[in-house]
Formats: sequence, structure tokens, C-alpha cells
Amino acid sequence: MAGPVQSIERAAAILRLLAGGSRRLGLGEVASSLGLAKGTAHGILRTLQHVDFVEQDPATGKYQLGAALLHLGTSYLDVNELRSRSINWADALAGRSGEAVRLGTPLEGKVLVIHHVFRPDDTLQTLDVGALLPLHASSLGKVLLAFGATPVEPLLEEEPEGYTRHTLVHPSELNRALAEIRDLGWGAEVQEMSMGEAGIAAPIRGQGGLVVGAIGVSGAVERICDSKGRPLPALITVLREAARAISRDLGAARW
Amino acid sequence: MAGPVQSIERAAAILRLLAGGSRRLGLGEVASSLGLAKGTAHGILRTLQHVDFVEQDPATGKYQLGAALLHLGTSYLDVNELRSRSINWADALAGRSGEAVRLGTPLEGKVLVIHHVFRPDDTLQTLDVGALLPLHASSLGKVLLAFGATPVEPLLEEEPEGYTRHTLVHPSELNRALAEIRDLGWGAEVQEMSMGEAGIAAPIRGQGGLVVGAIGVSGAVERICDSKGRPLPALITVLREAARAISRDLGAARW
Repeated sequence: MAGPVQSIERAAAILRLLAGGSRRLGLGEVASSLGLAKGTAHGILRTLQHVDFVEQDPATGKYQLGAALLHLGTSYLDVNELRSRSINWADALAGRSGEAVRLGTPLEGKVLVIHHVFRPDDTLQTLDVGALLPLHASSLGKVLLAFGATPVEPLLEEEPEGYTRHTLVHPSELNRALAEIRDLGWGAEVQEMSMGEAGIAAPIRGQGGLVVGAIGVSGAVERICDSKGRPLPALITVLREAARAISRDLGAARW
Repeated sequence: MAGPVQSIERAAAILRLLAGGSRRLGLGEVASSLGLAKGTAHGILRTLQHVDFVEQDPATGKYQLGAALLHLGTSYLDVNELRSRSINWADALAGRSGEAVRLGTPLEGKVLVIHHVFRPDDTLQTLDVGALLPLHASSLGKVLLAFGATPVEPLLEEEPEGYTRHTLVHPSELNRALAEIRDLGWGAEVQEMSMGEAGIAAPIRGQGGLVVGAIGVSGAVERICDSKGRPLPALITVLREAARAISRDLGAARW
């Protein structure tokens, strides 16, 4: 059996580099960031440019991501079964809860948002599809961790980022929270990523019962939680009904 | 100077294949579609899977696009200067015209939609960002062709697809239409892609005056056009003002 193709792994690493941080990089910056010889990096960048995965700014010579990736990204959404089976349920959940709804799946130690229904009012909101959320500080991520959809070990080995004073950064706190989520069957995040904001999420299971994603409701803490900072039971009920319905549509047995 | 890296070109071809047509393909289908040996295709697919660019369905063994592409695609949008400079103008244009607004840039012989503002009413609309429109049957595409942002030759060599009886499929018709667009400074598409629908578009110029994209307004033909099927002058005026404003923001000299 053939091993991985090194040049493709390097090309993927370059694209990932251009998707984070400063996003417009010169040849030297790309090469040194990835420990590649300049000639090697240049050959890969030119090929990526040739297939429209990378663009080069004619004025500065710097590289940035290319247009073909946008089409591939939206094509991924079209073919994603978790998302397609969830769209109607997510709309209904936003309507019933009056809050924004997000669907997440694990990607590279984060939560990738694959669907986002705006809170049903006329306020200005930004589409989060394609964004990466932290596992330990989002309700979607905590649920994915608790139900084994993504490994918790990397977070325990290295102290994760603290966004607010409520973020769970200590391994013992995080482990206790995950155990509680497994008991309850749903998880919350109360001002752990951003003060004033809270969210609750529930796992979505696929065929065989494995957790493949999570669905969550989030918004201002005073709308998601009661005066003691506990998520409102009525919201938890409609959320869990939606998660169960999607799991059933994905072929999970009753659970 | 090094040549293009063959394995990266092949990987890009596989991703493009998975983005079109049936979108879930077995190893044999991928290999034969691209004229690759099965072992070669398998090595590339396994590497693409390893970097989350491809997913394999455990039940069928078929391959489909992977989650990492979604994040790369939305990161492309974040870094795209044409889009970021256009967002406010596109919102204002949707408000002034009362119609949906789209922004397009050329990609692989099509128009890639990089921004889409819904028609400002409460009807259900689908986000077109990431979609590819035909060059010869969309107002965005005709404008990109007319102003040299993408070559017209491939369309003249092979008769393009006819979507309705109004689609311009003959080289002489298309050439005449493009010459008229160059004269007028804007272009229309009236029931050429879909009966009952029409659109108008204007070019966006970047530094040095080159056309880098197009902005368009589209909707029901009876709202875009007068009773003789001619686009309404008031719509053309607000559209062209938006296109000029974006060009100015992108650093194009007055034109």
C-alpha cells in the first residue's frame, strides 16, 4: 500500500497556513513557516496557483487563497448529509426557540460550523458557516468532546486558551464538565467564550449510534439562562427534540 | 525554475471531479475518469483524506469532499479584497433597487458568485455564494467576457449550452452582444438562463483599470425590464453608481 504523497501534504499545509494568521504571505514566509526550501515552496505555490487554489497579488508578489476553494467548500456543503438532513429541523428550532441555531462537526481540533440559522429577528447577524470554534469553550465543542466525536487528550496536555474568566482551562474542570454532559445528554456554555453570551447543544448520532455532530442554540445569556445562570428547561427540550429527529433521519437507532 | 508538481495537479483534478456531477465516487470511478492507475488514485485519495480534503463513506467506501475545504473556502472570502470592498455597496444597491445583488469573478470558464445579498423582502431565497454561473447566459458573465476579464474563445469554438430559447448560443450573436455591452458600459440578460428571470450587470475595475469582477441585480423580468423587455433606466443608474464606487475603492482611476 502506498504511503501518503508528500507534495500533497505540503500543499495542504500551505493552504492551511494561508487560511490562518495574516493570510497574505510572501514566498520566504511560506517556506520558513513550514521548514521548506524556497525552491520547493515555490514549485508547490506555482502549481496551486495554476489550479486556482492560490492567487498571487501582482503588486506585492504575496500569496493568498484562491477562488477554486470557495466552489469546493460550497460543494462540500451540498454533499454533506448531516447538513442536508438538518436544515429543516434547524429552521424549525430557530423558530421555536427564537434564537440562532448552529450545527457543528469536528475538524482539526476545533468545531467547524456547517450550518447557521440566524436568530429570527431583524438584527444584523454574520453568517458563521465555515468558521472554526474552540472545542472547550463552545457548547457544540463540549458536546463533541463529551461524546467522543473528537479526542479530548490534546486539550488536557496543553492548557487551552482562556477567553473569559469562565472558560474551562483546567483539565479537572473540563473532565468534570464533560462527564456531566454525558450524564445529562446535552451541554451548556455560559459566558465561557464571550461575556454576555451563552449556548446549549445536543449530540447528533449517525448510523451505528456514533456521534457525528452537534446542534446548538445560542444567544444573550439572559435569554438562554434563568436568573441563576442555568439554561432554560423549555429551550433544552426543543433542542433535544431537534437533535433526536436529525439522528433518526441519519439512520441512528432509537436511543 | 521547477515545473508544476504532478501529484498536486492530480489531487486538484480529483477534488474538482468530486465537486461536480455525482459527487460521491468509488476508487474505480475516480481512476478511470482521470485516466490514472488505481494505485496512483488510491495514494492521492488517501493523502487527501488524511488532510481532511476528502471523506470516505464507511458504508459504501465512496469518496466525497471533506470538511477542511469549507474552512478554506470561507477563509478565501475573508481575504478577498473585491468582496470586502463591495459588501456595503452591495447592501445599499439591494436596498435602492429592491432586488437581489450578486458579485461575480471569473473561475474556470464560469462566473464564481463571491457575494449575494438577498432581495429585501421576506421570501425564501437560497444563498448562491460559491455557485458557478455560465458566462454566456448570465449578466455577470457577459460583462466579464465583454471587458476581457476572461477569454471568449472557448465559447466561440464549442457551441455553448442553450438554457432557454433566448440563450445566445451562436458566436455571431454572442459577439454582437459583447460589443454592445462594451459600448454601453453595462450588460443585460433577459430570460437567457431561466424564463421569467432577468439581470443587469456592470464591470468592476481594480488598480490599473483592469476589470476584476462584475456586480449585478437580478429578479423577475417584469420588475427588471419595461413592457418591451428593456432594462429599466433607473435600475441601470443605481447599478452603475455602485460599480463605479467599488472600482474607486479598489484603486481604479476615474473612468
